[in-house]
Amino acid sequence: MDSLLLRAIRKEPVERFPVWLMRQAGRYMKEYLHFRNQERDFLSLCKNVDLAVEISKLPIKLLGVDAIIIFSDILVPLEPLGVKVEFVENEGPKLSWHRDIGKLKGYDPQANAYVYEIITRLKRELPDVPVIGFCGAPFTLLSYMIEGGSSRDFRKTKTFMWEKEYDFHRLMTLLTETLISYADRQLSAGADLFQVFDSWTSALSRSDYEIYVLPYVEELFDKLSSKHDKPLIYFFRNSSAFMDLAEDLKVDVLSVDWTVDLSSEMLKSDKVFQGNLEPTVLYAREDVLKEKVLQLLRTIPRRTGYIFNLGHGIAPDMDFRKVKLLVDTVKSFSLE
Amino acid sequence: MDSLLLRAIRKEPVERFPVWLMRQAGRYMKEYLHFRNQERDFLSLCKNVDLAVEISKLPIKLLGVDAIIIFSDILVPLEPLGVKVEFVENEGPKLSWHRDIGKLKGYDPQANAYVYEIITRLKRELPDVPVIGFCGAPFTLLSYMIEGGSSRDFRKTKTFMWEKEYDFHRLMTLLTETLISYADRQLSAGADLFQVFDSWTSALSRSDYEIYVLPYVEELFDKLSSKHDKPLIYFFRNSSAFMDLAEDLKVDVLSVDWTVDLSSEMLKSDKVFQGNLEPTVLYAREDVLKEKVLQLLRTIPRRTGYIFNLGHGIAPDMDFRKVKLLVDTVKSFSLE
Repeated sequence: MDSLLLRAIRKEPVERFPVWLMRQAGRYMKEYLHFRNQERDFLSLCKNVDLAVEISKLPIKLLGVDAIIIFSDILVPLEPLGVKVEFVENEGPKLSWHRDIGKLKGYDPQANAYVYEIITRLKRELPDVPVIGFCGAPFTLLSYMIEGGSSRDFRKTKTFMWEKEYDFHRLMTLLTETLISYADRQLSAGADLFQVFDSWTSALSRSDYEIYVLPYVEELFDKLSSKHDKPLIYFFRNSSAFMDLAEDLKVDVLSVDWTVDLSSEMLKSDKVFQGNLEPTVLYAREDVLKEKVLQLLRTIPRRTGYIFNLGHGIAPDMDFRKVKLLVDTVKSFSLE
Repeated sequence: MDSLLLRAIRKEPVERFPVWLMRQAGRYMKEYLHFRNQERDFLSLCKNVDLAVEISKLPIKLLGVDAIIIFSDILVPLEPLGVKVEFVENEGPKLSWHRDIGKLKGYDPQANAYVYEIITRLKRELPDVPVIGFCGAPFTLLSYMIEGGSSRDFRKTKTFMWEKEYDFHRLMTLLTETLISYADRQLSAGADLFQVFDSWTSALSRSDYEIYVLPYVEELFDKLSSKHDKPLIYFFRNSSAFMDLAEDLKVDVLSVDWTVDLSSEMLKSDKVFQGNLEPTVLYAREDVLKEKVLQLLRTIPRRTGYIFNLGHGIAPDMDFRKVKLLVDTVKSFSLE
């Protein structure tokens, strides 16, 4: 495959930096809401292959981005384990389970067959567009399970981690095995590259990340990189705190938030980088937004090996026209 | 003055690391609530010198910490500028002003005379205990003014900063001058050391911190260090992201959050360090709490030049007995 995105990851010459956006198909798009209203809830939408395929393609048609990320949610591989996942409108996910790790089921990757089917269909319909598969990282999924949903301070997760180390490691092991199997199936189904979202490292101290989280992320990437020769991306919040640790992972791309001084990190590293733009700029005036994007692009110290993205996902209240302007601005920045 | 705290800051030999805690006098103490109920609101309590002096002394008596931080709030120097500050119970501060920077009043430090009086009284009553004066940093105060209170994403502050650069710099200049004058008076009144709280750098990108925030912090510390020969402390959130920039400030002590790998930062730096313990450990079981404190203390690569503190302030729902255990654990860690 010879797309702009994959060439940039291989550090081959590119005419411009590739661009895609986390949560690029979502509530900020009225076309998304049209599909969304055809299913009773968010999770049913994820499982409706026809609709999920159409939603996944929206950003290609409407924004002109350089990759498709499959429309899904990081929580779907928890269901086969016996975790009940519900999405309450405007409240975020609610997770319930019997809170006995020993009673969780072994992961059957076939239970998420609809995800692999979405990938197969997308590759068939748009063979030239890179398709990104994804999953949450073990700690991020564990946090959802322990908190029962989102959290501000992750108090339950942290006290669980510190007070019940045996159970914590048991659950992390189960989740890591689950995610290896789930990711493997996505890659085998045809995903051209794969991103792991470690969104909730944002709350962790440096030493806790190193002791409790990093070994499982290492295991995940070791296994995937040994089995598949496809680019792997690690997205992690609180990026500046964990930069040197992430650097040693068997991943091709580090997707960073806006805490990082991108140009100096890129000068020190052989990795490909992705992201770094603070998403709040999408609330700013158009001239400011454009200038912020160009400022970032001008500081990139390479002419390849960078993928434009935000520091985290697009929010539902963002303005579609500004997102489009952002993509157009990146695409207008020529490297030739 | 020859206290343990000041000796540690001068890097003289100490028998143990000194300890004090941000928000050490607060709602988690029933003795505080006893004083709190004698005034109609939080701000009146800050202005009642008799009560503020008694509250400031509580942690010395009840916890046995090594320093007093004056009981006050970072928002009090905004009132003389013409900003109305209210504390709504369980809702945090509400700030209102006419939103015209040109109509803000010049700062009269005499309007905060009650703060200096608290310092004078504390030094008279407890001459051997180091008294810490404090203020918010310019950006943190500006954020409160622009948001009108607390915020999650600081969207208003950031769009103001990017879209109205002239007004932003005018307000930052006014706040910096205000804080220099306010801090100067606290130091002249007898504060033994002085801490600047930049709590809301947590939301900033690296480049925005460098362009919009850092020059004013530099100005503040340049002025204070040239006028007073007393230790200055800079507390800043998102510490790992801004570490190298803070390193160059004319401050004696860097007070860091838990994103920092403290031991490796201390090995690279001549600065004194403070803090680093994640406050969530105060919700953990007592044996875990104790072990977490000892783990941190064991990694300190020096036998002086470190002050124990949390990565941010004590929360109202924390358990007094655990806070006391934390202080006792630090005090039991002998360096001899």
